[in-house]
Amino acid sequence: MEYSQYKKLRQTYGFEEIAIVPGDITINPDQTDVSLVIERLNFPIPILASAMDGVVDVRFAIAMSKLGGLAVLNLEGLQTRYADPEGVLDEIANEPPEKVTQVLQRIYSEPIKDNLIGDRIKAIKDAGGVCAVSLTPANTKRMSPLAAEAGMDILVVQSTVTTARHMSKSYRGLIFSELVKQLPVPVIVGNCVSYSACRKLMETGIHGVLVGVGPGAACTTREVIGVGVPQAAATMDCAAARDDYFRASGRYIPIVTDGGIRNGGDLCKAFACGADGVMLGSIFAQTEEAPGRGNHWGMATPHEALPRGTRIRVAVNGSLEQTLFGPTSVTNGTQNLVGALRTSMGVCGARNVREMHQAEIVIAPSIKTEGKGFQYTQGLAK
Amino acid sequence: MEYSQYKKLRQTYGFEEIAIVPGDITINPDQTDVSLVIERLNFPIPILASAMDGVVDVRFAIAMSKLGGLAVLNLEGLQTRYADPEGVLDEIANEPPEKVTQVLQRIYSEPIKDNLIGDRIKAIKDAGGVCAVSLTPANTKRMSPLAAEAGMDILVVQSTVTTARHMSKSYRGLIFSELVKQLPVPVIVGNCVSYSACRKLMETGIHGVLVGVGPGAACTTREVIGVGVPQAAATMDCAAARDDYFRASGRYIPIVTDGGIRNGGDLCKAFACGADGVMLGSIFAQTEEAPGRGNHWGMATPHEALPRGTRIRVAVNGSLEQTLFGPTSVTNGTQNLVGALRTSMGVCGARNVREMHQAEIVIAPSIKTEGKGFQYTQGLAK
Amino acid sequence: MEYSQYKKLRQTYGFEEIAIVPGDITINPDQTDVSLVIERLNFPIPILASAMDGVVDVRFAIAMSKLGGLAVLNLEGLQTRYADPEGVLDEIANEPPEKVTQVLQRIYSEPIKDNLIGDRIKAIKDAGGVCAVSLTPANTKRMSPLAAEAGMDILVVQSTVTTARHMSKSYRGLIFSELVKQLPVPVIVGNCVSYSACRKLMETGIHGVLVGVGPGAACTTREVIGVGVPQAAATMDCAAARDDYFRASGRYIPIVTDGGIRNGGDLCKAFACGADGVMLGSIFAQTEEAPGRGNHWGMATPHEALPRGTRIRVAVNGSLEQTLFGPTSVTNGTQNLVGALRTSMGVCGARNVREMHQAEIVIAPSIKTEGKGFQYTQGLAK
Amino acid sequence: MEYSQYKKLRQTYGFEEIAIVPGDITINPDQTDVSLVIERLNFPIPILASAMDGVVDVRFAIAMSKLGGLAVLNLEGLQTRYADPEGVLDEIANEPPEKVTQVLQRIYSEPIKDNLIGDRIKAIKDAGGVCAVSLTPANTKRMSPLAAEAGMDILVVQSTVTTARHMSKSYRGLIFSELVKQLPVPVIVGNCVSYSACRKLMETGIHGVLVGVGPGAACTTREVIGVGVPQAAATMDCAAARDDYFRASGRYIPIVTDGGIRNGGDLCKAFACGADGVMLGSIFAQTEEAPGRGNHWGMATPHEALPRGTRIRVAVNGSLEQTLFGPTSVTNGTQNLVGALRTSMGVCGARNVREMHQAEIVIAPSIKTEGKGFQYTQGLAK
Repeated sequence: MEYSQYKKLRQTYGFEEIAIVPGDITINPDQTDVSLVIERLNFPIPILASAMDGVVDVRFAIAMSKLGGLAVLNLEGLQTRYADPEGVLDEIANEPPEKVTQVLQRIYSEPIKDNLIGDRIKAIKDAGGVCAVSLTPANTKRMSPLAAEAGMDILVVQSTVTTARHMSKSYRGLIFSELVKQLPVPVIVGNCVSYSACRKLMETGIHGVLVGVGPGAACTTREVIGVGVPQAAATMDCAAARDDYFRASGRYIPIVTDGGIRNGGDLCKAFACGADGVMLGSIFAQTEEAPGRGNHWGMATPHEALPRGTRIRVAVNGSLEQTLFGPTSVTNGTQNLVGALRTSMGVCGARNVREMHQAEIVIAPSIKTEGKGFQYTQGLAK
Repeated sequence: MEYSQYKKLRQTYGFEEIAIVPGDITINPDQTDVSLVIERLNFPIPILASAMDGVVDVRFAIAMSKLGGLAVLNLEGLQTRYADPEGVLDEIANEPPEKVTQVLQRIYSEPIKDNLIGDRIKAIKDAGGVCAVSLTPANTKRMSPLAAEAGMDILVVQSTVTTARHMSKSYRGLIFSELVKQLPVPVIVGNCVSYSACRKLMETGIHGVLVGVGPGAACTTREVIGVGVPQAAATMDCAAARDDYFRASGRYIPIVTDGGIRNGGDLCKAFACGADGVMLGSIFAQTEEAPGRGNHWGMATPHEALPRGTRIRVAVNGSLEQTLFGPTSVTNGTQNLVGALRTSMGVCGARNVREMHQAEIVIAPSIKTEGKGFQYTQGLAK
Repeated sequence: MEYSQYKKLRQTYGFEEIAIVPGDITINPDQTDVSLVIERLNFPIPILASAMDGVVDVRFAIAMSKLGGLAVLNLEGLQTRYADPEGVLDEIANEPPEKVTQVLQRIYSEPIKDNLIGDRIKAIKDAGGVCAVSLTPANTKRMSPLAAEAGMDILVVQSTVTTARHMSKSYRGLIFSELVKQLPVPVIVGNCVSYSACRKLMETGIHGVLVGVGPGAACTTREVIGVGVPQAAATMDCAAARDDYFRASGRYIPIVTDGGIRNGGDLCKAFACGADGVMLGSIFAQTEEAPGRGNHWGMATPHEALPRGTRIRVAVNGSLEQTLFGPTSVTNGTQNLVGALRTSMGVCGARNVREMHQAEIVIAPSIKTEGKGFQYTQGLAK
Repeated sequence: MEYSQYKKLRQTYGFEEIAIVPGDITINPDQTDVSLVIERLNFPIPILASAMDGVVDVRFAIAMSKLGGLAVLNLEGLQTRYADPEGVLDEIANEPPEKVTQVLQRIYSEPIKDNLIGDRIKAIKDAGGVCAVSLTPANTKRMSPLAAEAGMDILVVQSTVTTARHMSKSYRGLIFSELVKQLPVPVIVGNCVSYSACRKLMETGIHGVLVGVGPGAACTTREVIGVGVPQAAATMDCAAARDDYFRASGRYIPIVTDGGIRNGGDLCKAFACGADGVMLGSIFAQTEEAPGRGNHWGMATPHEALPRGTRIRVAVNGSLEQTLFGPTSVTNGTQNLVGALRTSMGVCGARNVREMHQAEIVIAPSIKTEGKGFQYTQGLAK
């Protein structure tokens, strides 16, 4: 008997294993439209910053908003546990690797202060920024009204895995169909990785979905609990759910690929896999504006009983503006991300993100070869 | 002509090449039931410790039993060859790598003392532990009555590969259908890796099967004799045999994945592949309670003519209790294994191990990427 | 739902993942014909040198022509920006890695001098060489008449991705069907990687196609914009387009695999995949005749906003003649490339390049094994 | 269009990518018959030593014959170019790596002395050994009568790739159907890797086939000319040809897997893939009896124009007897090869080599994991 009779396994792929095939027609990069629409909000660039304490604080969120993207502030992290988090950010940055998990566990045991929720949101709004904040499902019912009152523009409800239905004896699970009626703002929910889980979330009436479980560096979810789907596959699955749901309902719910994007090439591939937007952590942790002082850690890292993840040291690489728009002398794909996306769309002949969803993708062995590689780009990238 | 016409090869996978897909419904980890039933014995946690001399002695077996799991004492190892094995354990621990195989060959040439068989079993029973012991097929007929008389609760008959039928000119092979009638305790047999070999073992009337040939670090069976099947594939094959046999006979024979589990992620994947229990060696060799002093070796290592395996040095990593239940500051998945399993079952919506068998698995490239990985877990792992 | 329903991914391969299977008949290497025909021009060996500034200058082009191959001079590189480029070549060679991209950006900001276009071409022609030059699509309309007037023999129009149709608001794209009518010489266009893009280029009336996007070492196109197809797959795709177009039109348009060839083995595989010629960069950068002083960089490296690629240091390995024809004591496949091709064709029983297209190829894991490898070659390679 | 329409590629595997699945019945290793029959000659063990100058000289051939295997003496190597080759063997052993290819080229430019052909063969015969010698196709017609006259027992005609038909303008190719009629001894021919090439060789009336092109460490054929097929696939292909030819003709022509065997595991897999015998180079180069002084090189290494391969330094690992039969304290599978084969056949329930051809094989990822690996072997391997 074939073991496949017991369980059917399908092959999945990460961004590293795929590549985009150029199209039969090319267009000039400056003719591409890369905007992202979430309900009535239009973002000139389809890039979000992760709700991680080494990436987003009030100052970063304001800068990101001015540049046309969207940063998500974590309402359960350091910014709402400490009136002045600079001291603990220093402490995390200076701790040696072997002790940092314990120190993170202690620092994150400080309770959340309700008043800081309002303060942080107002600070972003007062500076003219679009304000997105995140909560975990368990805290959403209690804390989201506080955030709404303070003026948040978008709520992100996020945990490792969030499903339309959660079973618990001890508390009644969050009902998304009720939440979206109670809140005056769009609700983005995540994370999920499969067609059916994504579609069931969309059917609750939410306004956006975060895609990705376990693909990244600051996270060890796959190592600790065995769970995860490579991001190219997860994005394609959820894109299929989005398109089918759109055909069935007329509602187009954007999906945002969250995690596993290491450079501009991965970012471009996410869109070719069907993403409407991407959420970046470690790349933004490398900007001068990030609060992490060149460090990066996930929200599962400080978990008291089952920490999953680790603090990653990253180099500070340049300004947020350079990272998004260049110019740059860095050749590894971590700067001028928007230029890279426009160039990639250009060689695929895609005028906007939804046309980029049609780009051909191939499974391609990772590049390890030495040899000749030779490209002219003047004609295309200018 | 296609070479596949000569021999059909199917693709197999180890735990490293697969990942679990979260379900469409999630449940709180504290609502999961992870117990394992072997005949009339119920174990709160589905984890066994390998019959290896660096892992299990009397003290370890008692500790494991009190925590809800099951350790197997090797009746053909140091514990029954030496009245006081502490000296040879020291010697093994202190030997330099280039000499250790020869030293192991000498130490294991000491004959087994029948009286020590009874002594070790009684020591475990006197302390209130459940007592499982292991024998090789060649010694089972002679030694198992001694072990039964001393009060063993479970007999494990184990060799690299054990089949329902063994051909030999020099002696009559062990007949499992006779053995299970003669003994008053459940009999677990292993190891096997294929559907048909597993099913034929089950049809002899035995009560449990160990799955796994050649997957691990302290073993070089695949290098020396070319034999081995990756553990995810082996587990799925044998799970299919178990389910088919259950449908045909009404008897549910648990299978235990033995070998190749390096962390909590692998452990969770074993259950998603169809295991009812898992048997761990090197992870337990890292506990303070293990007799190996931070060393780990297989029972094929001291073989006089064809040694297969090597002594592995492992770090002592914490207590057995921490390894099983946490809390921990270790983020590599080697502690709080039960918490990891409950969390994994939670994101799959599995209320018990047999529901976990239904989890979706995908083939996923090994994680090597640097980048962003970002998870909230508060909502799920608490 | 299978994610493959969203997008169908096909598996592609690079040269590293394939191997050639010997034929059922062998022939003596000295009976093989390896010539390449481009329109009325016949080249005794089917090897081109890339239009890269570390590889080809006037002196190199002359040497290559005398040996039977074809070097392409870049008309938008250092040779037409600087009357005497030796100083900037020294500077590039001596710059430390962390500064070299910036220095390249500065050096390449020097404008192109129209008069140097004619001077370089005439120098090659005066020495009796066949003169091939390259331009990007954006500059082709203005500069190609200058090159034609100076006596070029072949024009190569090349950018990272060049398609038969390019959309731009700011300027009217290059129309290849018009270009080939205006110019008195054969036009080779590249690069492309897919069946349909290649076929559409052929249908414009051009005379040769360069195949390859993103396969090589001096290039980071796949990392920066996610675009690229492994060379074995790209070559086979474009070879299929060439054969179908030949059957439909009676015109046989040669395709030249450009990039990703690291040694003689890769070169032989390119022909087995359907190439009529190969274009080499880094291997020629290692010759004594190359102007790069043991350095190698792509034309995308100096891009001011989105540099893609890097300067590679390569060892100077011997003369161009040794590289092409041996004899050699080098055993890594970087010398006696023509001898290697003839030997490979011999064991495949291929009398010419088009018979070599029929060789069987298999997907073969990369060689990493230690062990015995034993070959007699006297009977075949002499 | 799919590129697969241009050329169909099939996936092939080396020994590293496969593993043997144990059978449903096991037998005691001491009941296995591992003999190899070549025409009327019966060899107790199915292992040949390669005709390489670092492996086989007269002394080695005699020792191998006494132990039940067969060593092949190269009649075009050092033993027939030098009356006393000890000096050049020292020179090769002492040369630094960067100069060794040049030195080998010089040493092998010494002409072959016809009288030494007879001397070497007689020396082996006088000591009671079975004498197998090798020639390349180009020299076979002239030299094989000399070898026959001197008393050789088996002739091996060997080059990188040998086919039933070879086309040359300068000389008439060797006709195997004539050769086998002229010679009084069995003729083994190689190497080949495909079903059809193997079958065509068998149809000429020869008595054995060597399988393998390009799989090994002392060879760079795949790197230099792109040609090679992984050994598991090549063996299965040629085994299919042998079985089909046997069904058609009634003649059973043994195939010998030559190359790519690094340890006992690979050796066992070769038989499970259909081999009747195996030919080993580097493993025997590690014995005390080998003339290479811990060095190993292929016959293509000294090629004057296109050297393919390199001198490998190997450790001297023990005696030939230990390598074949143990006992051993080495756990990496390079000693007790016959014991390993018997044990492997035992767990597959194979009583002889032809039953071992029926063993199940799976594609299995290479073992790289750390973890638990635990085996008892007493019951099986004794």
